[in-house]
Amino acid sequence: MPKPPLPDDVRDLLAKPNPAVITTVRPDGQPVSVATWYLLDGDRILVNMDEGRKRLDYLRADPRVSLTALDEAGWYTHVSVQGRVVETADDTDLSDIDRLSRHYGNGAYPNRDRARVTAWIEIDSWHGWGSAGR
Amino acid sequence: MPKPPLPDDVRDLLAKPNPAVITTVRPDGQPVSVATWYLLDGDRILVNMDEGRKRLDYLRADPRVSLTALDEAGWYTHVSVQGRVVETADDTDLSDIDRLSRHYGNGAYPNRDRARVTAWIEIDSWHGWGSAGR
Repeated sequence: MPKPPLPDDVRDLLAKPNPAVITTVRPDGQPVSVATWYLLDGDRILVNMDEGRKRLDYLRADPRVSLTALDEAGWYTHVSVQGRVVETADDTDLSDIDRLSRHYGNGAYPNRDRARVTAWIEIDSWHGWGSAGR
Repeated sequence: MPKPPLPDDVRDLLAKPNPAVITTVRPDGQPVSVATWYLLDGDRILVNMDEGRKRLDYLRADPRVSLTALDEAGWYTHVSVQGRVVETADDTDLSDIDRLSRHYGNGAYPNRDRARVTAWIEIDSWHGWGSAGR
């Protein structure tokens, strides 16, 4: 699988507000996937989750993740990245989830009651299909 | 996370030709995800892949997978299932990939030159969001 830096067309695809699925690995080795918002933030991928999510525990035990973004214009075109969560931070003012919410065409994130955590993913490898294929 | 049997609304969601992402785990523990066609086949999930795919090797080493299906009507509603590949078979006459292709609104699968393999996933647990949420 190709390594970073990402070519421009893959960056362009990842930069769109695509449906996406992120997978973490449970301590017993079982992969667990879930739909997610994400954002290409420089060379990293930003995701954000409720502080109560089990996958935060999984990530702290094993930071490796895989994320597949399906082109919003048609999911035959899709890109998967494999990487590691290299940083997490409390999203104290909810600015990160608001940024994600706006990126996906909404306003500020409506639920202001729950604490949230941001994670940044460093990309180790990627592969693409369709117009992002090689 | 809830265990099978799947409730009817989750079965109904999984029965549709939804965009989906399947994740396997590499022998070194790195999760690897990719977009996939899938089909709810009785209580199992059927997927099919080119015989050259690395994830066939991963599955043979560790049969555990996670599959997330995004509702074709809007991906806020989605269901994830965790399970194991309990059976694989050569799709000698390409009838399984044809079935998948037709399920997704196409005709017979156009590429008849490459050998393909079918895998059946037994569901151990699932979780849903949106109209499939609990």
